[in-house]
Amino acid sequence: MAVYTALTADDLAALIAHYDVGSLVSAKGIAEGVSNSNWLVETTGSAGSGTRFILTMYEARVATGDLPFFLGLLDHLAASGSPVPRTIHDRDGAAFRPIGGKAVALIEFLPGVSVDVPSEAQARAVGEALAGIHVAGSSFSGERTNTMALPHWRELFGGCGNDGLASIDPGLPAMVGQELDYLAANWPQDLPRTVIHADLFPDNVLLLGDRVTGLIDFYFACTDLTAYDLAVTHAAWCFGRDGAFRPGIAEEMLAGYGERRPLSEAELAALPILARGACMRFLATRAYDWLHTPAGALVTRKDPRQFARRLEFYRKSGAGAFRTAAA
Amino acid sequence: MAVYTALTADDLAALIAHYDVGSLVSAKGIAEGVSNSNWLVETTGSAGSGTRFILTMYEARVATGDLPFFLGLLDHLAASGSPVPRTIHDRDGAAFRPIGGKAVALIEFLPGVSVDVPSEAQARAVGEALAGIHVAGSSFSGERTNTMALPHWRELFGGCGNDGLASIDPGLPAMVGQELDYLAANWPQDLPRTVIHADLFPDNVLLLGDRVTGLIDFYFACTDLTAYDLAVTHAAWCFGRDGAFRPGIAEEMLAGYGERRPLSEAELAALPILARGACMRFLATRAYDWLHTPAGALVTRKDPRQFARRLEFYRKSGAGAFRTAAA
Repeated sequence: MAVYTALTADDLAALIAHYDVGSLVSAKGIAEGVSNSNWLVETTGSAGSGTRFILTMYEARVATGDLPFFLGLLDHLAASGSPVPRTIHDRDGAAFRPIGGKAVALIEFLPGVSVDVPSEAQARAVGEALAGIHVAGSSFSGERTNTMALPHWRELFGGCGNDGLASIDPGLPAMVGQELDYLAANWPQDLPRTVIHADLFPDNVLLLGDRVTGLIDFYFACTDLTAYDLAVTHAAWCFGRDGAFRPGIAEEMLAGYGERRPLSEAELAALPILARGACMRFLATRAYDWLHTPAGALVTRKDPRQFARRLEFYRKSGAGAFRTAAA
Repeated sequence: MAVYTALTADDLAALIAHYDVGSLVSAKGIAEGVSNSNWLVETTGSAGSGTRFILTMYEARVATGDLPFFLGLLDHLAASGSPVPRTIHDRDGAAFRPIGGKAVALIEFLPGVSVDVPSEAQARAVGEALAGIHVAGSSFSGERTNTMALPHWRELFGGCGNDGLASIDPGLPAMVGQELDYLAANWPQDLPRTVIHADLFPDNVLLLGDRVTGLIDFYFACTDLTAYDLAVTHAAWCFGRDGAFRPGIAEEMLAGYGERRPLSEAELAALPILARGACMRFLATRAYDWLHTPAGALVTRKDPRQFARRLEFYRKSGAGAFRTAAA
């Protein structure tokens, strides 16, 4: 949630001139994305282009070497009909350009708003859309290692230290140690792999009513277990403001997903452990950020305990959290 | 530059339903304004309404009691043909509504971008537009005391303390003391008064080429010496990135202004002291914020010394900074 870099109107106009989208009409820095600077840009447009775009400037957390993967993926998925923003290429065909030592990309603007408390119909639509990018992504040739996989959770927790974790919750050091060992010993190895979004929180889905109009922020996308992406989305969407599991949301999400991409028996059986892994992934980054963000900073730190509680829930409920209406 | 308050899509949709502007299509928190939270909102529109708006939530720094003045002024100026955003009134006719203990207003979206280094043609257009709101504002019935006038500069500098000021620049305590005394003894009393913007920095002007498409952020507007507003705008616009005075910009600004509202002899003669006052006003708030903003905070503190240097310039140049091409 930040605009880190100042770009003047002259900088922006000069940048926009490299694209076949007309001239600059408006530009507002927007509070979106955690690791990039973003502007909502309007232009006069041209034949074949829209008039509104998200201009993204990649700050330190996104490696320029990964941009061909991320931006190529957007193009691949959009061309397959997924509700994903296209990358606008410049007049030389490049998907991103350098400016002031950083890379920027011009990305299609999509309508829609992010919901806070989804309805069952919205959860079903999100499940379907997620399956849609898995199906479309299976023909994408790019590959990227998941840099937020199990070994990295261990590193991040190591960077918190047991004292740090205990300062968040006295029970955390023991739980984290146990869980890391359990997951390392039991993590599934031979499930289908595709490109996955890996961070499909409600913030990253645009909806108009029950229709998904945009899946955005693919900057954790990588090649990993397909069903892990569903587990991440399940862990991110299926709990209410009070922290309670919302079984109706979960059922509809799984049903929507299964309509577009039926899960194998092995995938369905693996969902409980994958969801535990998903909780550990977000617990790890949130605990690390919690302990390493100065208290006075204007960045909103997300409470790591939310995912400790969801982990606890998945540990107890096992397959119960993944019942479908048919079962 | 901040979005201070989280509003969910449900909050936003419920709010928008109180206005005759159709339903919510998109909402992005934007990094604009220093004391409010703002969203760029798109709706499906209705007969007589546009489809894009700035939704402003007033945080602590704007008193709700002042909103009828600020929002009424926007309506008055827009109705007079000034390039100022209209306030959208809700179905009950109210210009602002309460939400979660705060006030929000829906304001017309205007195209255009803020320039960093203006051209002479742009400076002329800005001068004209400023004179335009002074002429149109003379028939506005609202009144508001300038809460950033000379007695408040003294208070703010008092809150900095001499040690604080000296930590910014060793010469500041003496200069500030001298200047406050000089201004108190010599500040003009019987020049024309109207409603003034009082903060017309380049950030608060939207341009498309040489055309002013929007004057925005009227949250310091008040009733005060009309020519002081021109002096503020002069001090804000007529210096380059290197700090040097740009005489061509100043001449064109004054010429553009004079075309729409000729200055009296007394006003013209007062511009040098009014510009010194303008520099003291921004030096005071910037010095105060500089000393009272934690160094680690993600807010960009503006260097107070910029206006100390401009003050020095106006002290030395006197009437020289306000020559017009005709003179």
